[in-house]
Amino acid sequence: MRDVFQTDLDALREQLAEMGVLAARAMRDATTAVLTSDGELAERVMAADAELDVARDRCDETVQRLLALQAPVAGDLRLVMTAVYCADKIERMGDLAAHVADTARIRHPECAVPAELTASFTELGTIAAGMADRLVELIGRPGHGGFAELDDTDRAVDSRHAAVMAAVTDPDWPHGIPSATSLALLARYYERFADQAVSVAKRLDFVVTGVIAA
Amino acid sequence: MRDVFQTDLDALREQLAEMGVLAARAMRDATTAVLTSDGELAERVMAADAELDVARDRCDETVQRLLALQAPVAGDLRLVMTAVYCADKIERMGDLAAHVADTARIRHPECAVPAELTASFTELGTIAAGMADRLVELIGRPGHGGFAELDDTDRAVDSRHAAVMAAVTDPDWPHGIPSATSLALLARYYERFADQAVSVAKRLDFVVTGVIAA
Repeated sequence: MRDVFQTDLDALREQLAEMGVLAARAMRDATTAVLTSDGELAERVMAADAELDVARDRCDETVQRLLALQAPVAGDLRLVMTAVYCADKIERMGDLAAHVADTARIRHPECAVPAELTASFTELGTIAAGMADRLVELIGRPGHGGFAELDDTDRAVDSRHAAVMAAVTDPDWPHGIPSATSLALLARYYERFADQAVSVAKRLDFVVTGVIAA
Repeated sequence: MRDVFQTDLDALREQLAEMGVLAARAMRDATTAVLTSDGELAERVMAADAELDVARDRCDETVQRLLALQAPVAGDLRLVMTAVYCADKIERMGDLAAHVADTARIRHPECAVPAELTASFTELGTIAAGMADRLVELIGRPGHGGFAELDDTDRAVDSRHAAVMAAVTDPDWPHGIPSATSLALLARYYERFADQAVSVAKRLDFVVTGVIAA
């Protein structure tokens, strides 16, 4: 019985890690699509989002089977409960990457990001996808401290988000209102992607410590 | 043992319903604050959001106790798992209401919503808060069909959201870019609030049917 349980727990970890890989890839590709106005790549990112939905459902099924058959306790129970939460957050990260890709698609063939904001969005994409990469590592080899680390990284995202908002609401913004509103939303997708990553890291710490950080 | 279990399950339902009440009130008050530029009310909504965070943590604790002590199966297990998911979504609804309130606060003493969009945002607030009210009823007396109903209501939110986006990206928009970007984000908070309500209703159906709607 115990061996089956351990196998299911390992499967759960692998499923979550695989979701993290998909989210990181989606964000990286979506950022490329939005920066280079690559409509085909944008479509591919949006289509691939269905994989994350399926992966989330598979995680939920594994969790239900584990709970129904094994009645885990303490640290194992925390891991199982955390998996439900994290799978949902990572699935949402995929949605947000798809929103980034959709912005590329909507504004195609025009480029959604004007030259003066290329650096900001390149950084947002690199940092956000890197946070998803880091989650994959944390899921595979959990240890306390992921939350503090990603919370710190999140500040770098917030500062770029603030810089974009300052640029698009500047009275001298030269690219018109549709561009400004689209970029405000675009920056928010990155900010929310990073927020989800932080909340996953917080829950992963909880698996180890049994305490949810404030 | 069974009685303790039923008491815990009832407590979980009550905790979730209470969260729904808080989310509905937050959205109603936040909408009033943003439409009347009531800075004090906005501050109160933002401060009250901490109550929802506490309520969510209490739900999680009840769930953990239930799982650790009672090993529920089938429908009961689905309810317990669903509670984790729903508590998180309703807590997020509170965050979004707080974002609406924050928009009122940031633009105070100016009114964030110009006269020509008052009707749209009044409707968004009424429909969104009504969706939270409906969740409270569905949590208290679950029956299959809540998802289809709220998914239908969500279309009314989406159409108002689209109308606001069309207005603020119109070349003749007279209120400037900061107002346009702020209103685009504001409309998105309502849209996301409604999305969370739909996903809660979907999971509540699942408690009854054992099947997650596509």
